Amino acid sequence: MQTLSENRCFDGTQGVYSHRSDCCGCDMTFGLFLPAEARQGPVPLLWYLSGLTCTHENAMTKAGAQAWAAEQGIAVIFPDTSPRGDHVADDAAYDLGQGASFYVDATQSPWAANFKMWSYLADELPDLVFENFPVERERQAITGHSMGGHGALTLAMAHPGRFASVSAFAPIAHPSHSEWGGKQLLAYLGDKEWHRHDATIQMKSRGFDGPVLIDQGTTDQFLNLLKPECLAEAMMTRRQPGQFRMQRGYDHSYFFVSTFMEDHVNFHAEALYSL
Amino acid sequence: MQTLSENRCFDGTQGVYSHRSDCCGCDMTFGLFLPAEARQGPVPLLWYLSGLTCTHENAMTKAGAQAWAAEQGIAVIFPDTSPRGDHVADDAAYDLGQGASFYVDATQSPWAANFKMWSYLADELPDLVFENFPVERERQAITGHSMGGHGALTLAMAHPGRFASVSAFAPIAHPSHSEWGGKQLLAYLGDKEWHRHDATIQMKSRGFDGPVLIDQGTTDQFLNLLKPECLAEAMMTRRQPGQFRMQRGYDHSYFFVSTFMEDHVNFHAEALYSL
Repeated sequence: MQTLSENRCFDGTQGVYSHRSDCCGCDMTFGLFLPAEARQGPVPLLWYLSGLTCTHENAMTKAGAQAWAAEQGIAVIFPDTSPRGDHVADDAAYDLGQGASFYVDATQSPWAANFKMWSYLADELPDLVFENFPVERERQAITGHSMGGHGALTLAMAHPGRFASVSAFAPIAHPSHSEWGGKQLLAYLGDKEWHRHDATIQMKSRGFDGPVLIDQGTTDQFLNLLKPECLAEAMMTRRQPGQFRMQRGYDHSYFFVSTFMEDHVNFHAEALYSL
Repeated sequence: MQTLSENRCFDGTQGVYSHRSDCCGCDMTFGLFLPAEARQGPVPLLWYLSGLTCTHENAMTKAGAQAWAAEQGIAVIFPDTSPRGDHVADDAAYDLGQGASFYVDATQSPWAANFKMWSYLADELPDLVFENFPVERERQAITGHSMGGHGALTLAMAHPGRFASVSAFAPIAHPSHSEWGGKQLLAYLGDKEWHRHDATIQMKSRGFDGPVLIDQGTTDQFLNLLKPECLAEAMMTRRQPGQFRMQRGYDHSYFFVSTFMEDHVNFHAEALYSL
């Protein structure tokens, strides 16, 4: 593992690291914020998964999470959104290939060679992070924005007992029934296993074993692609503990994410410190 | 004036606007955050001047000012750092020309044609903003980072009575005696008027008629160019009301700026609401 940068931030450290990923067959980069408390011993860890076109950097510089994470004494990890490199398959469209993994393990050519983000986030990156940094495997929570909200919800529901809480900002909520999802799931998975990567379907069939918080803006320019109503209906039909908040006047940008970041970090901190 | 974008942000609005600048002979872009209170009537205005290579966008997306400005009910304006355009003079170096105005009115060729950022910030942009937005001319404060800290300090001291308070993050404190400044002042001004654009000299000769707050990181990679000790010595020799804070372990990045933004916004709010 290589340290690309470390900056003092809210009395903690905002680091950027790269490492060889066996899973993805390429070098991967991630950001990790460690609060001051991590200098004394291990702290809880919040995962933040980003949306289409993002790298590890967008949320790290624009979401404002460090202010609140520092206050709560929790670490935040910002993984990349896909494998990267000249030898890694890509597509001219912004919503397929590099920067647009949809957090699945691809089975179809040409994607299957490198696009193993599900395994990367579920296994490889956690092993690396818990071995190398003062963060607690027993206290994890997960959130994300847009495609990252989709990733956070599906990973959380697929790993009962791992995450104390899950939240999402404007998640892609029903990808198997949307143009944000249908195209990509077909490319990466063929016609199989779509249900495992659809938060609405997973919410209906198994739900999450902890609290859920979803924020969605009423003037999000992608509402028709995100399908928040499907996830909300699934949550409430299941009697899933949690809340779905429709926020008047907010769109899909990081101005929306940063506005509600304090609520999300505090929501996760409460769950993490109740463990 | 054209609206380029408006995003809901912390219950207020983060807008980006462009307009023809007579001063600079080109179109100029600025960001303006208006808190929710601005929907009821005029609010105080905090100016944020950015550093070398920045546009109106860097601080707007990375400094985290909106969270605290929203809490205090004050607007924040993010001007660009120079004139822009194919017809505007430029230089291959990152620290001269576009993105590097040093906030002066250039008198030397080829810069004199467009590089009038002093007049733009002192006169033209304020007139535009106070005419078009619910912000109070009687309640202004100013801050900035690096080259923007230099701009904030020199503008504030040159306009007694205009700004309730001034602050800076790692300002270029003594440009007439630094490679960050000497090169640019020579290019823009020839050998004249450098003292008007040197915060240390201005602090020695006239000071500021309100409180001053300076933050500087101890591990800033540009300490030798910034010369904080010169400004601190000038402030304390003058008995300038205010404080100069040397922050252990922080560098020159926006991770440093965002860490102390809450303090700066609250500092200005206190001065603005005491008027």
